[in-house]
Amino acid sequence: MLRNAIVWLDARAEEESTRIAKNFSPELLYKTTGLPEMSPIWPAPKILWLKKNEPDVFNHTSKFLIVKDYLIWKLTGKFSTEPTESSSTFYLKLKEKDWWDEMLDFIGIKRDKLPIIFPSYEVVGNVSSQVKSQFGLCTNTKVVAGSMDQMAAALGAGNVEPGIITESTGTALGVVATVDTPVYDPKRRVPCAAHCVPDRFVLYPYAETSGIVLKWFRDTFPSLSDRKEDYGQLLQLASRVSPGAEGLLALPHFTGTACPDFNPQARGAFVGISFKHQRTHFVRALVEAVAFMLRENIDLLKGLSIPVRKVRSLGGAAKSDVWLKIKADVLNVPVEVPECSEAASLGAAVLAGVGAKVFSGINQAVKEVVKVKKSFYPEPDNVAIYQKIYQDYLSLYQKL
Amino acid sequence: MLRNAIVWLDARAEEESTRIAKNFSPELLYKTTGLPEMSPIWPAPKILWLKKNEPDVFNHTSKFLIVKDYLIWKLTGKFSTEPTESSSTFYLKLKEKDWWDEMLDFIGIKRDKLPIIFPSYEVVGNVSSQVKSQFGLCTNTKVVAGSMDQMAAALGAGNVEPGIITESTGTALGVVATVDTPVYDPKRRVPCAAHCVPDRFVLYPYAETSGIVLKWFRDTFPSLSDRKEDYGQLLQLASRVSPGAEGLLALPHFTGTACPDFNPQARGAFVGISFKHQRTHFVRALVEAVAFMLRENIDLLKGLSIPVRKVRSLGGAAKSDVWLKIKADVLNVPVEVPECSEAASLGAAVLAGVGAKVFSGINQAVKEVVKVKKSFYPEPDNVAIYQKIYQDYLSLYQKL
Repeated sequence: MLRNAIVWLDARAEEESTRIAKNFSPELLYKTTGLPEMSPIWPAPKILWLKKNEPDVFNHTSKFLIVKDYLIWKLTGKFSTEPTESSSTFYLKLKEKDWWDEMLDFIGIKRDKLPIIFPSYEVVGNVSSQVKSQFGLCTNTKVVAGSMDQMAAALGAGNVEPGIITESTGTALGVVATVDTPVYDPKRRVPCAAHCVPDRFVLYPYAETSGIVLKWFRDTFPSLSDRKEDYGQLLQLASRVSPGAEGLLALPHFTGTACPDFNPQARGAFVGISFKHQRTHFVRALVEAVAFMLRENIDLLKGLSIPVRKVRSLGGAAKSDVWLKIKADVLNVPVEVPECSEAASLGAAVLAGVGAKVFSGINQAVKEVVKVKKSFYPEPDNVAIYQKIYQDYLSLYQKL
Repeated sequence: MLRNAIVWLDARAEEESTRIAKNFSPELLYKTTGLPEMSPIWPAPKILWLKKNEPDVFNHTSKFLIVKDYLIWKLTGKFSTEPTESSSTFYLKLKEKDWWDEMLDFIGIKRDKLPIIFPSYEVVGNVSSQVKSQFGLCTNTKVVAGSMDQMAAALGAGNVEPGIITESTGTALGVVATVDTPVYDPKRRVPCAAHCVPDRFVLYPYAETSGIVLKWFRDTFPSLSDRKEDYGQLLQLASRVSPGAEGLLALPHFTGTACPDFNPQARGAFVGISFKHQRTHFVRALVEAVAFMLRENIDLLKGLSIPVRKVRSLGGAAKSDVWLKIKADVLNVPVEVPECSEAASLGAAVLAGVGAKVFSGINQAVKEVVKVKKSFYPEPDNVAIYQKIYQDYLSLYQKL
């Protein structure tokens, strides 16, 4: 390894990102890679930065690897990658799942500087004897190419065919829809990537905030009666307030918005405040606001003709029946929680199991290991209430 | 007394209020009485209600009295009133300080059903012998006609000439400007009434909320570290945050607005929320919002060519140096606090003193008894900051 890895959020490649954006049209970038927005976070501009700023490192590099693929190399001695992580390099042709030569030319590298692209479930190699002695792993242990977390979580929640949407409400919000071929948004609001399931792709709109606004609220306005109040108790409070929080409406964009409308300047809000509103109303309003933000992204998918039969919820918020019920009412589709809350790990295990031939294939594995724990169904009365308030939410965002 | 008094906020005379509003044009009502809006709270529709619904009481009434004047009758045995309270009857011709015969005809009473109108400082009579025995007051004790609270407070704060504005930030917000002749707002946004000072009138815009939003905040989001936190401590927190609360902006209209824009549907808001905002920022934003609301009403007065040289602050908020300083910066005029915080009582005492010839006149009395305790001056840097944020505040109200 010639230098430390550069973390994805690192913004040093600002200038290089602009150079790439000037050389390729936004439409070409999007249609080729599935990524709507060139920015310094992607590997392509980072490699270009290395070429200019650390030519020694650049010239002596034999392979450019994503962190996961570096770890697989350490485990097996094999250079590999797979379509899900490669979808976020800006130098993968998404539809073909092959390197994009024009981009490689522009950033100044040849194909031989990149690893082979395996299917996510395919065995890259066995654990090396060096690893055996270091970690006590048997050299018969197979290592598969693996997957990015969002796609692995989708797989681990059974989201492997169009119709089921997974959403993860944790710190931020991630939504994943499985599609059969790459789907492009004419307004370029949503990224498309390869799924870890063969011949499938995903649309994955996301938002900068979600559960974290509840953490902010609890830390900023702590409970007087219970200093150790956890999210469960906080959400229990929300359940005591009727849908719509008696006119209190929140925007959860405390640090800008991403999908469907990219706006780093957007901020959070509470409006409609009157003297009857208590702490519980504010909790309810925030929880509803996060559900509305989820709906914005689900509606974005529907607008692209993506079928939405049901939603499976992951992340910290999936522990809260209150929140799940609100989501079902706001989205007007059933919301399910899988038994295994660590869906990304389960998805990775499924890929390994298929690679090791424990399962005959991904569909069989999903049938055997993915179980739904609880289902929440929309109630027509609440759906009607939220339909109205959701419009208020959208128009509030437009106004502010 | 034939029946209990009807409290001013009582809305039973809705229908009668509408009848009066249909019979007289809004312009005539406003130009004659100084009151911009007919509603059930005023005595005129309430008397009309009595005529229809309690004809026995109505027919046997010898005098219709405001509560203060009833108490003076109990003290002295004399029927009296004065221009300040009469200004809120809707049957006083403001400019002439005489009863409005057309309105008396419409509500079905003659002048002899109303008391004599004394100047506020004039002695109505001495304490009766019955009161002497009941309360131990000497029968030499003189009783003057008195004043409504807002005008008495203006007098007690030295607001007896154009140029000084008094504002009272308590539960709600009351602003009083002294003028030499009745001033009418072409948009009918602000009431005009007689002052308790001879040959003076007042404009008195008001708002439904002010200090009460801070009480709501303290009760709704109490301090974890100090369960007995008082307003002084809360406002001390506000002083730690820089002007503008780092982008957090509030609207204080938790129960609608009155002046300058009458809108019972308006509600409170916090916008611009980001993760850096703590409890202290919310306190600051509320305190600033109340100062902005005050500025709206001061600007309304300026728009009517009322001179605004300085503001004298009364009410609970006048105890807070932090708040007074913010007001000076937001208003861009000096803000002073009188030594006597009970300005309405002091004003009443001045009227009594003039009536009892302790003082040669009101101006001499004001010079002797009204002292300024502290002055707060606008700082140009803060004025510039607030000038910008005040525009944001106005436009936020328009948007919501």
